[in-house]
Amino acid sequence: MTAIAISAPGGPEVLQPTTRPVPQPGPGEVLIRVAAAGVNRPDVLQRMGFYPPPPGASDLPGLEIAGTIVAVGPGGDPEHLGQAVCALVAGGGYAEYCAAPVGSCLPVPKGFSIEEAAALPETVFTVWHNLFERGYVRDGETVLVHGGTSGIGTTAIGLCKLFDIKIIVTCGSADKCAAATALGADLAVDYSSEDYVEAVKSFTDGKGVNVVLDMVGGDYLPRNLACLADDGRHVTIAFQRGAKVEFDIADVMRRRLTLTGSTLRARSTDFKALLADEIHRTLWPRLAEGGWKPAMDQSFALADASAAHARMQAGEHVGKIVLTVG
Amino acid sequence: MTAIAISAPGGPEVLQPTTRPVPQPGPGEVLIRVAAAGVNRPDVLQRMGFYPPPPGASDLPGLEIAGTIVAVGPGGDPEHLGQAVCALVAGGGYAEYCAAPVGSCLPVPKGFSIEEAAALPETVFTVWHNLFERGYVRDGETVLVHGGTSGIGTTAIGLCKLFDIKIIVTCGSADKCAAATALGADLAVDYSSEDYVEAVKSFTDGKGVNVVLDMVGGDYLPRNLACLADDGRHVTIAFQRGAKVEFDIADVMRRRLTLTGSTLRARSTDFKALLADEIHRTLWPRLAEGGWKPAMDQSFALADASAAHARMQAGEHVGKIVLTVG
Repeated sequence: MTAIAISAPGGPEVLQPTTRPVPQPGPGEVLIRVAAAGVNRPDVLQRMGFYPPPPGASDLPGLEIAGTIVAVGPGGDPEHLGQAVCALVAGGGYAEYCAAPVGSCLPVPKGFSIEEAAALPETVFTVWHNLFERGYVRDGETVLVHGGTSGIGTTAIGLCKLFDIKIIVTCGSADKCAAATALGADLAVDYSSEDYVEAVKSFTDGKGVNVVLDMVGGDYLPRNLACLADDGRHVTIAFQRGAKVEFDIADVMRRRLTLTGSTLRARSTDFKALLADEIHRTLWPRLAEGGWKPAMDQSFALADASAAHARMQAGEHVGKIVLTVG
Repeated sequence: MTAIAISAPGGPEVLQPTTRPVPQPGPGEVLIRVAAAGVNRPDVLQRMGFYPPPPGASDLPGLEIAGTIVAVGPGGDPEHLGQAVCALVAGGGYAEYCAAPVGSCLPVPKGFSIEEAAALPETVFTVWHNLFERGYVRDGETVLVHGGTSGIGTTAIGLCKLFDIKIIVTCGSADKCAAATALGADLAVDYSSEDYVEAVKSFTDGKGVNVVLDMVGGDYLPRNLACLADDGRHVTIAFQRGAKVEFDIADVMRRRLTLTGSTLRARSTDFKALLADEIHRTLWPRLAEGGWKPAMDQSFALADASAAHARMQAGEHVGKIVLTVG
């Protein structure tokens, strides 16, 4: 099969078409003929050499796919054959075929194109777990997310709107703020021209937000904490400005703040299956009703994966970038 | 009535007997004739001028008392009159009489002296809320607490033993380690001669503890995080080595750690009543069965409050210091 490999750590140009054997699905796995694969920030980090695949995962990039199940692993259920699914995978998505744990597969939601389906797993699983399960956000509360036009940001906007949660985002330009607002953000703060802490305080009548979903870290962290209301939760999913953080633990005590975080890729197959099951039961019916679709930025052919990465790194995209296969 | 006031911020000698009007219980309050009052570290901080009473609280020190209800506030239930209770108060405990919210009162447990009852509220409420409600510790898990012979440390040892939780403590000398072990600590690490991170790792077969209940902060915080197992929780209740903390948020993400903390004194009367109710239903029956009694260090007459503070500051005590009144 044709796949996109990382020929060496480096820029977008190191993504090179290559020929690999079609993966064999193991026990508990299915083989998917990939029709579309989502592009995510961790793929860029992996390409640059900063995010090695976890043990046992493919060395090929690609954390989410959509396509058709064409084989099942030993002992698998033949009824799965021919089903159109999207799946969260630990790697190997930039390819014509990809093996996935059957528990990480979800049906393509009614009314979704295959590209839209491929754009769901990585950001939906990440936002769901971190916002709802780690951040305990509930209806009526307010969330702050940086990078409002990113895959994570646009997904967070969509899920918050669906579940009656107010969402404040930050973006790097007035245009992106307008895009985020158009997608449903209750407030979009242009961090290039405005102090987001002040903007959050003002928007929330001085109370602050209940949850920060943070991809920035570093010097943003104490500023994020300043945005939190009493009993607020801070959930870290990336640290684009550095992992070293410094803050006042007395403030955490006094206001009963909570800091946590997680990474999705290294979690167990069982955990991902539980998460997929919850999302299937809770979110999928809302998607079938037309409640939300991912914001789609641009599609690229699999062979043009380097162009897709260049677009993500340029930072001009709004929503999800996907690769189409075959 | 006679009470002990803080004549000016300073050393133990600023605690001076004074005459004050007997407090009038307000709606939802009772008046307690104090027989014994617990001495706690926050009293020392308040005396030094570092921990001002919250709005509406007495300026007199003293956060826990035991005695007899001698009056009820407007609309109160006269059946409370004559009951022997211990109570958590927001201040004013170093006195012959003290008003307390009726929801913060608990009966003196069967078999307990009045001094033992006075030694319960502050540390039991604090350990209960932070270890169980914020730290989510459960049976079979392991906890790390610094200051194993302090009021908090000895209470944590007692409650952990009662609920089948393993507890590791640190202490500043071999003698104190022996005292903590005699009280039931599964491991006591002498931090003056041993690296507690290594000791925790070794005792837990490299896995780490599930919860750290921390009163130290500062440079201990990253070391505490290094002691945590995956999915571990770090709960801050004081910061004796400083409130400024610095650590690696990537480690928090990768191992799904949680940091939180709280202060008890400033919480609402309603919150304290809910907490008291839970403790009454869950812990009190176990105390009546003889399951645990607080470790008692020494009693001082109310007039000798300054000697009680000097003893606490010398740090040679094991367990609770109380003042006896009348």
